[in-house]
Amino acid sequence: MKTSLDCIPCILRQALEAARMASPDPAVHEQLVREVLHCTAGMDLSESPPAMAQRIHRRLRQISGVVDPYRPAKQRLNRMALGLLPVLQGEVAAAADPLMMAARLAIAGNVIDLGANGNLREADVHQAVQQALTESFWGEADGFRQAVAGARSILYLADNAGEIAFDRLLIEQLGPQRVTLVVRGGPVINDATLEDARAVGLEERVVVIENGSDAPGTLLADCDEDFRLRFREADLVLAKGQGNFESLNECGREVFFLFKAKCPVVADHVGQPAGTQMLVRTPVGQKAAG
Amino acid sequence: MKTSLDCIPCILRQALEAARMASPDPAVHEQLVREVLHCTAGMDLSESPPAMAQRIHRRLRQISGVVDPYRPAKQRLNRMALGLLPVLQGEVAAAADPLMMAARLAIAGNVIDLGANGNLREADVHQAVQQALTESFWGEADGFRQAVAGARSILYLADNAGEIAFDRLLIEQLGPQRVTLVVRGGPVINDATLEDARAVGLEERVVVIENGSDAPGTLLADCDEDFRLRFREADLVLAKGQGNFESLNECGREVFFLFKAKCPVVADHVGQPAGTQMLVRTPVGQKAAG
Repeated sequence: MKTSLDCIPCILRQALEAARMASPDPAVHEQLVREVLHCTAGMDLSESPPAMAQRIHRRLRQISGVVDPYRPAKQRLNRMALGLLPVLQGEVAAAADPLMMAARLAIAGNVIDLGANGNLREADVHQAVQQALTESFWGEADGFRQAVAGARSILYLADNAGEIAFDRLLIEQLGPQRVTLVVRGGPVINDATLEDARAVGLEERVVVIENGSDAPGTLLADCDEDFRLRFREADLVLAKGQGNFESLNECGREVFFLFKAKCPVVADHVGQPAGTQMLVRTPVGQKAAG
Repeated sequence: MKTSLDCIPCILRQALEAARMASPDPAVHEQLVREVLHCTAGMDLSESPPAMAQRIHRRLRQISGVVDPYRPAKQRLNRMALGLLPVLQGEVAAAADPLMMAARLAIAGNVIDLGANGNLREADVHQAVQQALTESFWGEADGFRQAVAGARSILYLADNAGEIAFDRLLIEQLGPQRVTLVVRGGPVINDATLEDARAVGLEERVVVIENGSDAPGTLLADCDEDFRLRFREADLVLAKGQGNFESLNECGREVFFLFKAKCPVVADHVGQPAGTQMLVRTPVGQKAAG
């Protein structure tokens, strides 16, 4: 997915929030914002938003000297989501269709995205859970069910810390023995890394690998060869979150995307109102975001 | 007031909205956004936001060839506000304190600001009116009343089209014979010009002058000498709107500002929640926005 002009104010807001997360020094904030302005002035809009975000967050780590500014936030989000897990497991167990209830709750977990909303409150998470419990998602329920039934190997691309605890619900329904969970190769925003998979108890339940990249999405050319091979060969690929959608929606193989359409640009791209719980398959529409 | 780093994403959003208002051509939108990015990368943050906005909107007029992209919007907003006027005049007439009710409604009219909210709906205006009818403003009621009582000459700096119809309520209470109404010297966003003063029937009720500048605020050095003389010599200066506040809150003379704190930066500067109806006097706090 290309970067829309509407993404640019949002990229700047996100850069400023990240700078404040990394450092209390206003000079660091100003330097990063000026560099991002300079860099976006000449940016290639045919790149996806995660490609730009990757460059910004790398530069922030250089300027601030802080390797993982979101680490305390990620730890807090993992704890918060783990706290909700027993109740949500009960909801899945009691549901008429546990697979689809688990998918809806995994999508609800995608609200825990500090890139889209740096001021996320616990109330936002509770609201997303309520929505998942009462509203179905928009998209491919039958196609998803068939693909799950027929797959021997499932590659599950995680998105965010906190959210990754919600992913346990769906992974338990899919059957952990056929799932490989993929996390980012390095910290960026609150995207899930190996540490987060460990913190929510997934490392002991499924095979977990890193993708070799520090982009807040899946830029295939930037991922390592082991990941790319698994990505090509898996019977089924599930990708969580807007960043994975923005970077893989034209990737050439079938992927099921599970996410909340949080921003107006993505919502417009999929033709649904912002806030919609999405479960869609590549290719998604022909409409270019521009 | 200085430009905060938080203003920059908002400046970009506003530039993009303005570009879309001026032209249906995506190449125009992209050119303006890239130029604004380049220009803000090197901007002097000690300048006020209206100074930056002035440059952006001048450049937009050059690129698009459209002298007044907001003209149809301004005409629509004037008609909408004029339609509300008879009911609001009734509210002022029936109020226990007509001067203060008129001030509150004039402040409510400041919601009609397409710089702060390009998607303004008529419902937003109704909501602001309801707030004004039921809630007092934050600030200097007594100081304002005394200043009004003692003034022979009042300079009233208008802000936006649409809003300027609400200003009639307060000008009627102040006594039109001692009021000089000031509008912008040229079109910028939906700021009120001579044409808007005429459209809402103010030109026939008070002396109306232009300030000689096309900034969406009052940059004294950019205004003409006639205006500056009146600004220095008026017994009382009332200034409507965030743009006038941002550009005059450190101007060295007493000014009463009437506005809704619409953005988080201004709200933080005045130490009140966003949405607060403000009637404050220079100097306002000592806190720098940064």
